[in-house]
Amino acid sequence: MAIPVETFFLSPDAQGTLQAQIQQMVAEGILSGRFQRGEQLPSTRALAKHLGVSRITVTLSYTELQSNDYLTSRGRSGFYVSDNAPEPPSFKTPARKKDTVEWARAIGQRFTGGVTLRKPADWARYRYPFIYGQTDPTLFDHANWRLCAVKALGARDFSALTTDYYDQDDPDLIEFIARHTLPRRGIIANPDEILVTMGAQNALWLTTQILLTPRRAAAIEMPCYPALRDILTQSRCRLAPVAVDAHGLPPDDVPDGVDVIFTTPSHHCPTSVTMPLERRHALLDRARALDALIVEDDYEFETAFLAPPSPALKSLDTDGRVIYAGSFSKSLFPGLRLGYLVGSAEFIREARALRASVLRHPPGHMQRTAAYFLRLGHYDALIKRSARALNTRRQVMETELKRHGLQIAGQSPHGGSSIWVALPEGTDAILLAERLASRDVLIEPGQPFFFGAETPINFCRLGYSSIPSERIPEGIKRIADALR
Amino acid sequence: MAIPVETFFLSPDAQGTLQAQIQQMVAEGILSGRFQRGEQLPSTRALAKHLGVSRITVTLSYTELQSNDYLTSRGRSGFYVSDNAPEPPSFKTPARKKDTVEWARAIGQRFTGGVTLRKPADWARYRYPFIYGQTDPTLFDHANWRLCAVKALGARDFSALTTDYYDQDDPDLIEFIARHTLPRRGIIANPDEILVTMGAQNALWLTTQILLTPRRAAAIEMPCYPALRDILTQSRCRLAPVAVDAHGLPPDDVPDGVDVIFTTPSHHCPTSVTMPLERRHALLDRARALDALIVEDDYEFETAFLAPPSPALKSLDTDGRVIYAGSFSKSLFPGLRLGYLVGSAEFIREARALRASVLRHPPGHMQRTAAYFLRLGHYDALIKRSARALNTRRQVMETELKRHGLQIAGQSPHGGSSIWVALPEGTDAILLAERLASRDVLIEPGQPFFFGAETPINFCRLGYSSIPSERIPEGIKRIADALR
Repeated sequence: MAIPVETFFLSPDAQGTLQAQIQQMVAEGILSGRFQRGEQLPSTRALAKHLGVSRITVTLSYTELQSNDYLTSRGRSGFYVSDNAPEPPSFKTPARKKDTVEWARAIGQRFTGGVTLRKPADWARYRYPFIYGQTDPTLFDHANWRLCAVKALGARDFSALTTDYYDQDDPDLIEFIARHTLPRRGIIANPDEILVTMGAQNALWLTTQILLTPRRAAAIEMPCYPALRDILTQSRCRLAPVAVDAHGLPPDDVPDGVDVIFTTPSHHCPTSVTMPLERRHALLDRARALDALIVEDDYEFETAFLAPPSPALKSLDTDGRVIYAGSFSKSLFPGLRLGYLVGSAEFIREARALRASVLRHPPGHMQRTAAYFLRLGHYDALIKRSARALNTRRQVMETELKRHGLQIAGQSPHGGSSIWVALPEGTDAILLAERLASRDVLIEPGQPFFFGAETPINFCRLGYSSIPSERIPEGIKRIADALR
Repeated sequence: MAIPVETFFLSPDAQGTLQAQIQQMVAEGILSGRFQRGEQLPSTRALAKHLGVSRITVTLSYTELQSNDYLTSRGRSGFYVSDNAPEPPSFKTPARKKDTVEWARAIGQRFTGGVTLRKPADWARYRYPFIYGQTDPTLFDHANWRLCAVKALGARDFSALTTDYYDQDDPDLIEFIARHTLPRRGIIANPDEILVTMGAQNALWLTTQILLTPRRAAAIEMPCYPALRDILTQSRCRLAPVAVDAHGLPPDDVPDGVDVIFTTPSHHCPTSVTMPLERRHALLDRARALDALIVEDDYEFETAFLAPPSPALKSLDTDGRVIYAGSFSKSLFPGLRLGYLVGSAEFIREARALRASVLRHPPGHMQRTAAYFLRLGHYDALIKRSARALNTRRQVMETELKRHGLQIAGQSPHGGSSIWVALPEGTDAILLAERLASRDVLIEPGQPFFFGAETPINFCRLGYSSIPSERIPEGIKRIADALR
């Protein structure tokens, strides 16, 4: 790669001759690792013009650097960083002045310190990855995604790619969501009741900013998605954790004074249990009695391979009380960052204004590509293909867990992509996970999903969306072995 | 498009026979516009299986709907929405129950009510669009962008496309920014001092959340980018507007007690004036005296076609006092939504945590595509090509404004893509813009850039990044004509 002329500046405060200054800039670039071996320097003519110095000054600097082995000359094609140039130091930071800013004081609000669920970045290199929510390259329809993306890069979609939507969304994607995605969940919504978000995470974040303040209270499920807990903690609202049972959130346990109830009725996170219809009605009744709103995170409804999914809680809502968050990042791939928020127009209007302030809009190209992928039926085909694979894997999971005497503590009656496992009393799932990682097995400890003093240590989530079924038996065997 | 079977649900509370319920679901779908003429219904077998009813029940429903002209049958290929089906009502919302939620109370914090700079969505249809910050299809290198995007869709980049980066970024893009983009601005930064953002808007928003609270004060330029003002207003900090002069923000006018100074030294927004080097040093001194931080929005430095751009304010900062916001959305296209934030590691750590909470990370595919476009030199070529066009256009603009006696109130000595114009005393730029729109001319009134009681009404910004130079004379003539 050629080193652009624009990276050179003469400092008005610099010491020494012009020639020395130029030599120093080049040497510093090489020593700091910015200019790398074999890279071409600007021509003497170009650099002289850019810096407003005579060409001979630049030539003399380059020649001097050449005799010091920083540069080599390749005849007419110019000067290059020499293969014998001094190595940049292997430690990362060149010695620099320390900030005089006192950051502890300058930072007005802190956001670090939350729980980040982080899988090893190299999870795909593990042979037995029981991890959750990542893309299985053997299932994802990369070829058709690419075709849709290329279509969305065409001249016809130039505007969808480049345009500044301000606070608006791709109308094609909104139309598909309104006409096809939501009706599958029993939800009828107008375009002004839908907002495209940067994944479900962003949907939950926007909702929290609008509905919660330090004077309000939110009920969350316990255990619960840790990122949601962090979002709510940052909003400084009061938090009322409600323990879930085998049917999800028990409505009667939602305490008085709660303003917003966060729930995952389709598949509870992380146990995967599903809330039955009667309880959904009871939860709506409880919310009505409290005059509370409900935020429904309807994730993973697409993985219903054993039975049709129950309609969303939102579809039963005649009050406008339910705000619905859906995601394409789960069912397609997490790097997509596309989800949607559905609620009354009054609410969506505020969410739209906040989103505009925070980031304007999700990139048009990602929206249009998703719209094509959905509209051409690739999404449905993908869901069906995944469902078949997940179905097989789940059967193997159940058989093998049983064989090794491991106890299933939660799973979805419709399907899902993970099983919640209760390890033997006293087992610390975090320690177990560490031990297993060295044996090529990844599991997800349950601790981060709990909070407060009574965190049980012996739960883990075993995802099967990224492990081929033929590897499951050996993987489960290794877990059982490690437990002994 | 086929209507998916999953959009049908039997409600347990529904009245009437199963056959009647199915008929009603189909008829409602058609009447609400969700099922459109020519679309295929699920087969009787599939729908019966899905709903758990007998196939004859579905067949009877379909036949009844057929005799009512809702559906037609095409022999073995099944049932379709009839071309004679009743039209959905032309008004948008079917009559629905009114929300029982009292939104005025339920919404804890409002975000609507800000000033949105909104260009007409169909601006490209205007013959004389003096608008700012949109993509000129005759200049943008769509072909190479597409090639880079296709490369980033390849098997080698499957992980960059699909992966969950959590709070991280594409390492390729970060490396390019650190090694090539920032050094052009005189800035040397380590990867842990750089965060990729959803455009400069997102960079400014993140910075505000971390640095400002209701107990702190921010200085902003007057006039100023309205979205920044909205972001700061939402943070409820105190706002100290400082009037800019021909050299940008006057450091001595920044009042005592200010914690953060927001400035646009390269090109002031919206007047385009540039802050000279001495004033940059003076501003740093003033900030040091106040123990304040500076947020530098370094937009449009790429449009320096008349003279090399001055190094960024950040490059003069030895205290760690300057937080730097850059954008690719401006120089490439606004729908890209990619920018970056540079600052001390302590600050970037908080910004990273907040970004993770709000949206996790900008889509991997957009980041990788941009990294290729930059690395292959297409970006530099684009900037050069644009600079040539902008240079020509600016000359025509100056000539024509002078010819018609219009007064230039601000422009960049380096280049830029717009001119700030003072209309004759007493002219209301908003009214003028409305009048001109009907004559195929778009201009941007200056009022939204001011706030407070003393808003002058006779300024406008004339962008020339989207109008071919040969149309400029007639466009300026129409402005002059409208002023008479």
